[in-house]
Amino acid sequence: MNKNVSSYPFKVEPFQEDFSGRLAWGVLGNHLLRCASLHAGEHGFGYEQMSAIGHAWVLSRLVIEMDCRPRSGERYDIATWVGRIYRQFTDRFFTISDETGQPFGHAYSVWALIDIHSRQPAELGKGGSFDFSQMLIPDRTVPIAGPSRIRVKAEKPAMSVTSRYTDLDVNGHVNSIRYIEHILNFFPKETYEQKQVRRIEAAYSAETYCEETLSIFVEEQACGQFCADIRKADGRTAAKAEVVFEET
Amino acid sequence: MNKNVSSYPFKVEPFQEDFSGRLAWGVLGNHLLRCASLHAGEHGFGYEQMSAIGHAWVLSRLVIEMDCRPRSGERYDIATWVGRIYRQFTDRFFTISDETGQPFGHAYSVWALIDIHSRQPAELGKGGSFDFSQMLIPDRTVPIAGPSRIRVKAEKPAMSVTSRYTDLDVNGHVNSIRYIEHILNFFPKETYEQKQVRRIEAAYSAETYCEETLSIFVEEQACGQFCADIRKADGRTAAKAEVVFEET
Repeated sequence: MNKNVSSYPFKVEPFQEDFSGRLAWGVLGNHLLRCASLHAGEHGFGYEQMSAIGHAWVLSRLVIEMDCRPRSGERYDIATWVGRIYRQFTDRFFTISDETGQPFGHAYSVWALIDIHSRQPAELGKGGSFDFSQMLIPDRTVPIAGPSRIRVKAEKPAMSVTSRYTDLDVNGHVNSIRYIEHILNFFPKETYEQKQVRRIEAAYSAETYCEETLSIFVEEQACGQFCADIRKADGRTAAKAEVVFEET
Repeated sequence: MNKNVSSYPFKVEPFQEDFSGRLAWGVLGNHLLRCASLHAGEHGFGYEQMSAIGHAWVLSRLVIEMDCRPRSGERYDIATWVGRIYRQFTDRFFTISDETGQPFGHAYSVWALIDIHSRQPAELGKGGSFDFSQMLIPDRTVPIAGPSRIRVKAEKPAMSVTSRYTDLDVNGHVNSIRYIEHILNFFPKETYEQKQVRRIEAAYSAETYCEETLSIFVEEQACGQFCADIRKADGRTAAKAEVVFEET
């Protein structure tokens, strides 16, 4: 394996499944973020290394597309690598595979490196504080569509959610995967009994905090394709999300 | 180590912490349930083995008491064993320790074995379908108080929560640890900045389901000791919970 790719072994442990007995989306999403963090740390550009030079990684986009999800007790691996750098962004890819190497699915994420104090993008290319060029695998991508442009015209919120202590990550922000869970929670259980989620997408715009109430505007844009705009009290978008179902 | 005790190694992985940088209570709670499930499975009385003979384990009580919780990156072990059987219940204990064996804390759980069809308690003693006597370690307990009797007199609910897809476990019920998260979410972030949770207790009475709205009645019964009654729409108690804070 290319030394710039790291692969992490997992198993669907008891209490990590959704009601269908397959790996819960929330667990999968947080495992992807974990792998991103571990891979970056092992290669010298992780949370602590970036923090030491006044920088932090910010997740901008996340797309997860799964043919199917592993079941209770099943082993799987998450491989991750960085594909390219462009402007202030970097693309990080993931492949989720079974023990024989057969993919369950893939993920595509976009990250920005920001200056902790100015909150402005930091230089990722030449002249930056870390030489990312040595890390890139420009010819290796994933066979799923990248982030799309999510637009929602709905004028009335379908639901609202107030963020609480257990929604927070180590930075005191609402955990990125929680927004995906919010849109999944728009659908009743019977939707999940009839269809399976094939693709989930999230676009992150603004951090949200504890006790903040978010309004969630939802719209079906094609058969089984739902988009959501998750807005702060002042009307600004915190995140947008898309869920695509397919008949089982 | 006694062959009836199983110990499982863990590490506080990225995205498993709360905002204080310590292992999130929800992750810890689900890890305890995972260890209970793995230990039972390894010793012949797990979910699948009991299911095959028409029985299922039901969590009745859970108490977790922590001197402190491990931080990001820290390793810890969860040891678990079954202490005794009495009437239709069995006591399962847990010790959460650091790498040197120093305890972070302990947990005390009570389980009932029920008949899947009648929902009535199954026989755990002699004459039952599994000889639990060989599994017991009657003289080994944990140095924390066992389950108490939680009483809540509050007449108005402090909050209500509607359960959704991501709250469900593999059986389609709301995950047991989610009730603990509900009571933790009663408190604003600043409470967690000023105090730390020392003890959490839950008593489970009735399963709840997707789209069910729960009313949560909360009462401070002593300085830093809060009790909650989590009720279904028909007024029946689904679970009661208690949280005890201490000054940091």
